[in-house]
Amino acid sequence: MLLEHIHQSIDEHYPEMVDIRRYLHQHPELSFKEYKTAKYIADFYEKLGIPYRKNVGGNGIVATLKGGKPGKTIAFRADFDGLPIQDEKDVPYKSKIDGVMHACGHDGHTSTLLTLAKVMKAYQDELSGTIVFLHQHAEEYAPGGAKPMIEDGALEGIDAVFGTHLWATTPLGVLQTSKDVFMAGTDRFTITIQGQGGHGAYPHETKDSIVIGSQLVSQLQQIVSRRIDPLETAVVTIGEFKAGNAFNIIADTATLSGTVRFLNTEIQELVISEMEKIIEGTCIANGVKYTFNYEKGYPPLKNHADEAELVLKASENIIEIHTREEVIPVMGGEDFAYYTMERPGAYFFTGANKEGNPYPHHHPKFDIDERALPIAAKTLINAYFAYQEK
Amino acid sequence: MLLEHIHQSIDEHYPEMVDIRRYLHQHPELSFKEYKTAKYIADFYEKLGIPYRKNVGGNGIVATLKGGKPGKTIAFRADFDGLPIQDEKDVPYKSKIDGVMHACGHDGHTSTLLTLAKVMKAYQDELSGTIVFLHQHAEEYAPGGAKPMIEDGALEGIDAVFGTHLWATTPLGVLQTSKDVFMAGTDRFTITIQGQGGHGAYPHETKDSIVIGSQLVSQLQQIVSRRIDPLETAVVTIGEFKAGNAFNIIADTATLSGTVRFLNTEIQELVISEMEKIIEGTCIANGVKYTFNYEKGYPPLKNHADEAELVLKASENIIEIHTREEVIPVMGGEDFAYYTMERPGAYFFTGANKEGNPYPHHHPKFDIDERALPIAAKTLINAYFAYQEK
Amino acid sequence: MLLEHIHQSIDEHYPEMVDIRRYLHQHPELSFKEYKTAKYIADFYEKLGIPYRKNVGGNGIVATLKGGKPGKTIAFRADFDGLPIQDEKDVPYKSKIDGVMHACGHDGHTSTLLTLAKVMKAYQDELSGTIVFLHQHAEEYAPGGAKPMIEDGALEGIDAVFGTHLWATTPLGVLQTSKDVFMAGTDRFTITIQGQGGHGAYPHETKDSIVIGSQLVSQLQQIVSRRIDPLETAVVTIGEFKAGNAFNIIADTATLSGTVRFLNTEIQELVISEMEKIIEGTCIANGVKYTFNYEKGYPPLKNHADEAELVLKASENIIEIHTREEVIPVMGGEDFAYYTMERPGAYFFTGANKEGNPYPHHHPKFDIDERALPIAAKTLINAYFAYQEK
Amino acid sequence: MLLEHIHQSIDEHYPEMVDIRRYLHQHPELSFKEYKTAKYIADFYEKLGIPYRKNVGGNGIVATLKGGKPGKTIAFRADFDGLPIQDEKDVPYKSKIDGVMHACGHDGHTSTLLTLAKVMKAYQDELSGTIVFLHQHAEEYAPGGAKPMIEDGALEGIDAVFGTHLWATTPLGVLQTSKDVFMAGTDRFTITIQGQGGHGAYPHETKDSIVIGSQLVSQLQQIVSRRIDPLETAVVTIGEFKAGNAFNIIADTATLSGTVRFLNTEIQELVISEMEKIIEGTCIANGVKYTFNYEKGYPPLKNHADEAELVLKASENIIEIHTREEVIPVMGGEDFAYYTMERPGAYFFTGANKEGNPYPHHHPKFDIDERALPIAAKTLINAYFAYQEK
Repeated sequence: MLLEHIHQSIDEHYPEMVDIRRYLHQHPELSFKEYKTAKYIADFYEKLGIPYRKNVGGNGIVATLKGGKPGKTIAFRADFDGLPIQDEKDVPYKSKIDGVMHACGHDGHTSTLLTLAKVMKAYQDELSGTIVFLHQHAEEYAPGGAKPMIEDGALEGIDAVFGTHLWATTPLGVLQTSKDVFMAGTDRFTITIQGQGGHGAYPHETKDSIVIGSQLVSQLQQIVSRRIDPLETAVVTIGEFKAGNAFNIIADTATLSGTVRFLNTEIQELVISEMEKIIEGTCIANGVKYTFNYEKGYPPLKNHADEAELVLKASENIIEIHTREEVIPVMGGEDFAYYTMERPGAYFFTGANKEGNPYPHHHPKFDIDERALPIAAKTLINAYFAYQEK
Repeated sequence: MLLEHIHQSIDEHYPEMVDIRRYLHQHPELSFKEYKTAKYIADFYEKLGIPYRKNVGGNGIVATLKGGKPGKTIAFRADFDGLPIQDEKDVPYKSKIDGVMHACGHDGHTSTLLTLAKVMKAYQDELSGTIVFLHQHAEEYAPGGAKPMIEDGALEGIDAVFGTHLWATTPLGVLQTSKDVFMAGTDRFTITIQGQGGHGAYPHETKDSIVIGSQLVSQLQQIVSRRIDPLETAVVTIGEFKAGNAFNIIADTATLSGTVRFLNTEIQELVISEMEKIIEGTCIANGVKYTFNYEKGYPPLKNHADEAELVLKASENIIEIHTREEVIPVMGGEDFAYYTMERPGAYFFTGANKEGNPYPHHHPKFDIDERALPIAAKTLINAYFAYQEK
Repeated sequence: MLLEHIHQSIDEHYPEMVDIRRYLHQHPELSFKEYKTAKYIADFYEKLGIPYRKNVGGNGIVATLKGGKPGKTIAFRADFDGLPIQDEKDVPYKSKIDGVMHACGHDGHTSTLLTLAKVMKAYQDELSGTIVFLHQHAEEYAPGGAKPMIEDGALEGIDAVFGTHLWATTPLGVLQTSKDVFMAGTDRFTITIQGQGGHGAYPHETKDSIVIGSQLVSQLQQIVSRRIDPLETAVVTIGEFKAGNAFNIIADTATLSGTVRFLNTEIQELVISEMEKIIEGTCIANGVKYTFNYEKGYPPLKNHADEAELVLKASENIIEIHTREEVIPVMGGEDFAYYTMERPGAYFFTGANKEGNPYPHHHPKFDIDERALPIAAKTLINAYFAYQEK
Repeated sequence: MLLEHIHQSIDEHYPEMVDIRRYLHQHPELSFKEYKTAKYIADFYEKLGIPYRKNVGGNGIVATLKGGKPGKTIAFRADFDGLPIQDEKDVPYKSKIDGVMHACGHDGHTSTLLTLAKVMKAYQDELSGTIVFLHQHAEEYAPGGAKPMIEDGALEGIDAVFGTHLWATTPLGVLQTSKDVFMAGTDRFTITIQGQGGHGAYPHETKDSIVIGSQLVSQLQQIVSRRIDPLETAVVTIGEFKAGNAFNIIADTATLSGTVRFLNTEIQELVISEMEKIIEGTCIANGVKYTFNYEKGYPPLKNHADEAELVLKASENIIEIHTREEVIPVMGGEDFAYYTMERPGAYFFTGANKEGNPYPHHHPKFDIDERALPIAAKTLINAYFAYQEK
């Protein structure tokens, strides 16, 4: 009964939800520089009279709505940073900031949480337990905001944590999650081969960094093809190969950068050690020096099976959701991973595909169907209620 | 006796020779844009009263000194273009043109010929045969100036042609030439592999141009290692490998550019056809398209054995020359090649190493020992006399 | 109650079960040549008075025990061929046939089914439904016996089919299965590169099949590393590389043979088409011809989820089974795959690790703990009863 | 005048020369096992009354014909071992020894020298200087017979040494030599990669020696393509690649064997050190061990310019020789190399192509035109006379 009223209230707040999302969409800020967005969020809670803590682990904000009745403390997380992409959409709510864009839907995540906070504030007395709103900065850029927020106490007293991503390539009305690993671990690396340049006609006086780099690329293929259990998952991609400045000069240096994806950290460690071995050996074979800079990004995001199950079950009375799916992992990364390493919890995708807009996340024409926002809000609050009864 | 006087006269003109060279050194012009240098040369012949033709095949100038007695017509060639290099020498005659430099000694070649013309003008009546001074533009940049000058009649009536390069890495007093191929053929190429870009986590949805390009580089090694007669010479160098703009995006396109060197055109054709086969096959193996743009540059410079022998022998009475060497080919290119394809002739190096200056041709600190200029002039005129008696 | 009696009866028949297994162990026969084993099985049913059909699809035997009460018809399958391996165990029941050995436990499978048939014969009147005993020849050697037996009507009238493998590396008391793909598809291939041999000192007069074959091996790595969805599974192994007969002669031909493993046929088809592309392209790049002989083996064995669940559930009252596991796929192949392509069914592993014997299947010292046989029999009959009630 | 008589005498001995050659052709012996051939030679000198020393450095024989007049001491060398090849010619003088054949013309070399000794014995008194006949065993199999013969004093007192090879692919009447390096250095090597075998479906549990070996082959291409001066000559051929015994088992070990050819020992040393680097690095990259066994064979055969010139000049009055050529090096090896490292000397080819027989040296159908034998004898004796007058 209460939940029905809440759903109805969420629906009534839909125009405001859209307004907030569009305002944020027009004012995106880059990771770790979301000062104005943070202030906007803080002001919102200030006005609502919901207590909050700001500058949590950087620009993070943690607001706490304590219900009138005892119960568990459950956190919802929304990230709020934008991306260094030029908005190319032709819509009234287009980004006003040159070269910066909410091309991943974090504006919608934030609007969902703020609106839900406003709605729930009205039910505070009747509410069992406590809702914590985790507004996280800097999801887009490792090392991310989740880790410092947790280190700054964002998860203290929290029993479980839920979060959602509005997912532009999943149809509206579809809810997707996994009972195990849901999103990949994502690392980056740069390899520099220090050869010895020289005249293109005299290869024997040089150490040809292009030939060496090419061998390295070929050999690195073996990690996935031969050294990883075929039933495990790993990706080693070299995204950049830069060497040489003239067709007739043998290149002194070749620089390769890339990304590694994996679903568990044992595979991650194996990939790293095999890369080291292959790079070292290839450089010994060619008598050259190298640097290998490997930066670990976010770990794999692993849902807790019970909490994922709870999200699926609890969403059954949301009429807009016609499909609930357990899906195989997505190879992209998410620092929501850090939350489920510390607390029970689950992350899920709320289908938000906008008809006629096929553009994926991080595309200059990315957009979402805003009707997904109330669906996301309802799914979160349903999970909250279900978890209280667990 | 006459030759002795001429040598003496050359020595007397040494200061002027240096002045001309230094003036040109301070006013270098890029290939195909040597307008002022061409005018300087033309004015010189104008003043001397030696008939000349200008705009030969471009900026070329052909001056003709007809001797008083019958004999053969022999051409001397000097090139006069500079290079797009910033002069980093600390000398009074440093280049006054920003980013342009006589970093290959063409200033010295020109001064040698102009001074020799002035000297020989005084002996015109006593002279058997005719000297033709070929001042060639644009040696540094294929397709070069030699070819259009020849097409414009520069070699008409010529019996033989001689030329020299002041050679900065050969000691003063050393004369080097070859009775066969003396300098390499030099071509350039660009290969573009048109893969299919995409997210670094989803290689199966892409065609990874970096992996394909790397395989190509490895396979191209085989041309020299397996497909060329081990007793022949070929170089296939890839000087540039450019692909990708982000570590986590699979690169759409890889661009490889490079140079091919060879000493005979059969090898050149073999290299081209093997490259085509390897590029095509590699792209079929990977299901991608490509472009292969191969530009033939200068052919190998092949001296005529008799004329090379004549240069060596005729130089024996030049006391500054203490060493005469037949050397193995130099892998750099020279469009003097076109002259000896049309006429008997020989090209030789006049040692011009400046003590304490180890910098090679095309280096920002390149310089020559100016005492090499009169040696070059004497070697040319000696060859002229020897050829008349042949 | 009935099931309890049956379990008790199975236990009472344990000594006979062991005798049958050991007799078969001492008399192994190779795939498609299991004439005596087939006769042994047929005689067994003859003696029991259970009707059977022989020479089903080759050496297969299908026996049918029709219960006194109506019900479903459920098949149990046991394979009965041995392997071309020399038995190196030091046991009294060691193989008496030189070079042939039951190194995969098919002797135990057969004994399990025969004993179960004998036990169930006693309960024929009380039994609901019909048990079909599928004694399959030639599992070890593709194209296998399952396919021709099915074509010969072995599955006619069958509602569901169950089978088990005694699994030497799984502990006794452990039951393993999967609700989806349980065992891999397994293909084989041979590639012949027809180069052009010649004197080792004159590579340019040859087409070096070793260099070409080596490139091919390197390029084939890319199928798994770049062309297969990282969340899918594929293995491309080259097990043999044979080329050349003298250190100083360039090899005319290189022969590579290998295996492909996969869990679904889309991946299989993708691997085949990518192999074709890579082989073709590599050979074009090298101007040589090739043959590519790809033989599809068994498809992936995919269990039906309900039947696998039923096996797990139905086994709960078997006290010897302490652990029930859903496991990830095993990369080996099984032609049981054909049965579940036609009928509902499930395959499972019955843990049979013999203490102190760590040797895997197909090892010359392979053996099993015979106490696994009654466990296998009980699990099958329990599944039968559960399926009747389904 | 004397020389004319000698030539005439050689011609008169032609039938005997052919007989000797054919006798030897029918009785070939393998390297280091030429006991009967050595006895045949020794007996020949015994009968002639020319003093000789036997068992020189093994099976070698050194005979000395001291002329009646003072002069220089000049050696002629002929090798006398056969090859492990089955004679497939259909001629009366076919090898009588199964699997052994004079497939390289050493029978002819020996006959030439023996006949020349017999001829010259008649002119002993008139002869200035001394002729030494070096009958060398074991040219076909490194480390060869030349080295131990020299160590055993074969070159003591010798002023110059000459030798010839009857050359089956050069037309009769053609004399070929070089004033510098004439034949290549030839080494052999074996590389064993010790991977870790295993089941073809589980590559991650293995170290795949085929993949590693293939990378190694690709990387070794670089030695010639990038690390050797393009104007120098080197060949690195892998003639054998053997790995694996089953299509579905990952190969434990890969064995590669091959040959290296070079024209100077600096290049040889460079190739060895680069091979070591590449093998070591590749094995480090793959975490495996290896063995690298490199056996130096014969060094490059370098003629002395004056002696080669002398051979060419001195042959001018031999009417059967219509063509004298200086040729580029042959990539095959010869342990005559050791003689010219110790004494002035020259090696040359005596054209011996038999019409209608295109088979090269070491072919089962190899044969020579026997008319080349007197030509070889005359060329040697002419060189002797010319050297006396030098």
